[in-house]
Amino acid sequence: MTPSPGGRTSVTAPAAPPSRVRVHNFSISLDGFGTGEGQTLDAPFGHAGHRLLQWALPTATFAAMGLHGASTPTTGVDDAFAARWADGIGAEIMGRNKFGPQRGPWEDTDWRGWWGADPPFHTPAVVLTHHPRPTLRMDGGTSFHFVDAAPVQALAAARALAGGRDIRIGGGVSTVREFLAADLIDQMHLVVVPVLLGRGVRLWEGLEGLDQRFHIESTASPRGVTHLMFWRR
Amino acid sequence: MTPSPGGRTSVTAPAAPPSRVRVHNFSISLDGFGTGEGQTLDAPFGHAGHRLLQWALPTATFAAMGLHGASTPTTGVDDAFAARWADGIGAEIMGRNKFGPQRGPWEDTDWRGWWGADPPFHTPAVVLTHHPRPTLRMDGGTSFHFVDAAPVQALAAARALAGGRDIRIGGGVSTVREFLAADLIDQMHLVVVPVLLGRGVRLWEGLEGLDQRFHIESTASPRGVTHLMFWRR
Repeated sequence: MTPSPGGRTSVTAPAAPPSRVRVHNFSISLDGFGTGEGQTLDAPFGHAGHRLLQWALPTATFAAMGLHGASTPTTGVDDAFAARWADGIGAEIMGRNKFGPQRGPWEDTDWRGWWGADPPFHTPAVVLTHHPRPTLRMDGGTSFHFVDAAPVQALAAARALAGGRDIRIGGGVSTVREFLAADLIDQMHLVVVPVLLGRGVRLWEGLEGLDQRFHIESTASPRGVTHLMFWRR
Repeated sequence: MTPSPGGRTSVTAPAAPPSRVRVHNFSISLDGFGTGEGQTLDAPFGHAGHRLLQWALPTATFAAMGLHGASTPTTGVDDAFAARWADGIGAEIMGRNKFGPQRGPWEDTDWRGWWGADPPFHTPAVVLTHHPRPTLRMDGGTSFHFVDAAPVQALAAARALAGGRDIRIGGGVSTVREFLAADLIDQMHLVVVPVLLGRGVRLWEGLEGLDQRFHIESTASPRGVTHLMFWRR
């Protein structure tokens, strides 16, 4: 090997990767509903129950979030997809219904989300609401920032909290739909579950031609769901 | 080998298999539309064009129907599913919109379907319409029988024409939906195509809980569609 003049190889530091906007583990029924009808404190997904998450709950990834019921977590095909949800994420954006079942002005300010003192996010999370309230700082690095903003402004707020890392759009259904409609999503992992919910909140409204903005690949898992990966053309 | 008494083995003729009701190659968009909006003579699938059939047109099965555009028909995964559409079928039931674009009383009685003098069905086909007309007998064994009937009666009419063989529900979307709602389908091959049509005729209306009546398996094909097989529990 011949040293270059000056005795060292000239290298340029790689540019920081751009901060991407990602959706992960987003499950819809075969008829396109991302959640059921009638969310309550006892039924976060309404009449859908946990049917849309049956594929995910046994995985090691969901077990590590404390959301599992499996005695022996799986590390198969479903976990290979599920596991990608946190890597490189600096902040999440979620709709208010993902945070909790209250509507309108906050009456129960003791509510700190569905996830207990140490939520599984471990990053800042922007909660979209027309009723801002002070930031909640939780154990384990999660904080909830209540913001009344359209998608573009919410994304700017999340980026300001994300330290240059990626933003996850965490749901619910309307939030994912709004970010897709605003063409703000770079990558989306969608899971189609072969159940017919019949009612609830549809993902696919007003998104005609969306497929033309993305590469799409899909694979069926042995548990019977279909994983679809979308990434921007 | 010891001959049984009487010198022959006692056998019973197998019972004739029951006539099943089947759906094949039925394609829907990711957002659940089985056809687009605005069917016309030049656009049988409305604004959807041929997007829902892109997976099928290159197959040897569709090439043999005269519907292809491929120079070298494929005999891969998609064809393995497509090929099952005709075997054992004794009659088809189709909605009027599959037969043609006319609505209301028949004004153009010269219309003999989209398929030319020798349609690919080669069996009797019951066409559901509120405006009965005389039976059309085509080349190659296809005949069109125009019947004003609800699903159960239409099925009886098809069985009377099918010689004990299976009945195919050939579409369109509303016809498949009505037969599913009436719980008359025994097997269904559904193909989910990763396009977002946004508008048209939805398959999944009023079918909540349908999945509980079926076993469902799915596999993704290399061309990017997902084949789902439903069979009665």
